[in-house]
Amino acid sequence: MDQGRTAILRAARKAFAREPYDAVTLRGIAADANVSAALIVKHFGGKEALFEKVADFSEATQLLLAAADDDLGRHAVVTLVNYRRENNQDLLLRVVFAAGSGDERALIREHFRDQVTRAFAARLTGTDADLRAELITAQLVGLGAAMAVNKTGPAATAAPEAIADFYAPSIQALVY
Amino acid sequence: MDQGRTAILRAARKAFAREPYDAVTLRGIAADANVSAALIVKHFGGKEALFEKVADFSEATQLLLAAADDDLGRHAVVTLVNYRRENNQDLLLRVVFAAGSGDERALIREHFRDQVTRAFAARLTGTDADLRAELITAQLVGLGAAMAVNKTGPAATAAPEAIADFYAPSIQALVY
Repeated sequence: MDQGRTAILRAARKAFAREPYDAVTLRGIAADANVSAALIVKHFGGKEALFEKVADFSEATQLLLAAADDDLGRHAVVTLVNYRRENNQDLLLRVVFAAGSGDERALIREHFRDQVTRAFAARLTGTDADLRAELITAQLVGLGAAMAVNKTGPAATAAPEAIADFYAPSIQALVY
Repeated sequence: MDQGRTAILRAARKAFAREPYDAVTLRGIAADANVSAALIVKHFGGKEALFEKVADFSEATQLLLAAADDDLGRHAVVTLVNYRRENNQDLLLRVVFAAGSGDERALIREHFRDQVTRAFAARLTGTDADLRAELITAQLVGLGAAMAVNKTGPAATAAPEAIADFYAPSIQALVY
């Protein structure tokens, strides 16, 4: 993903998280991303298409699940931490942001369930797979929240592998 | 806590999470809580005092930590789940909400670190206590997020003890 595109997506996620859909403007996103509004149109089409992209978790799921079952916990933790540090944004956390009308919140949450939680559930066998999948994604969203809330704190600054040493076994324990 | 007070606090948490501080009105909170604005003033003083109350996590910490060390994981999970079901609100999740100006967000996050994460850290010994405390609160915030995002899903509806069976060991593993 080229830099302009990444910057636009980051600015769009922020804008849609903080302001109601109607209040978000391509011009505002362009200013925050330090690009022209025309570049946004070129990359994404209009505001509606950009919101759809923000509400889409398919890339996040693909990255988080790119590991064998017995390494899934560690892989997901390290991927989440590294993605945040490299891109200054979180793969999943936008699902909890509260701004926007009920319709937009509902769409983001629906996509999260369909694209993230169900994809994790599909990797699990045995009883309570849906509950375990939701608890796995809960841990990942929580880790993202911790890194976002305390930007200079231990979770935001520790080595990804050190975080995984503490945090991955919890996730891995639910993978079976 | 009496019902009016609880309803006011719930409405206030929602309002401050969704709208910038300047846009929040006592009248709007009163309407949502189905009480008079005068009752809010009687219970909490004005808008600033009400915001301080929303930004305060001392009650949450007191509830979550009210257990012996070897039962802390299970106690915290069951308490968080039961509190949400009984009060239709989360003890911790408001720390990640994105609305409000930078100042208000910063205050809520600072209180969360000082009142929640540090209190957990004070219960831990050994190395990396601060990181472990942050990862414990990460798991609790994540669980709250899961219950909020998918209101009819497995985490929102399963028996608290069943959730704790899967989720508490992860937290307990970091308590030492």
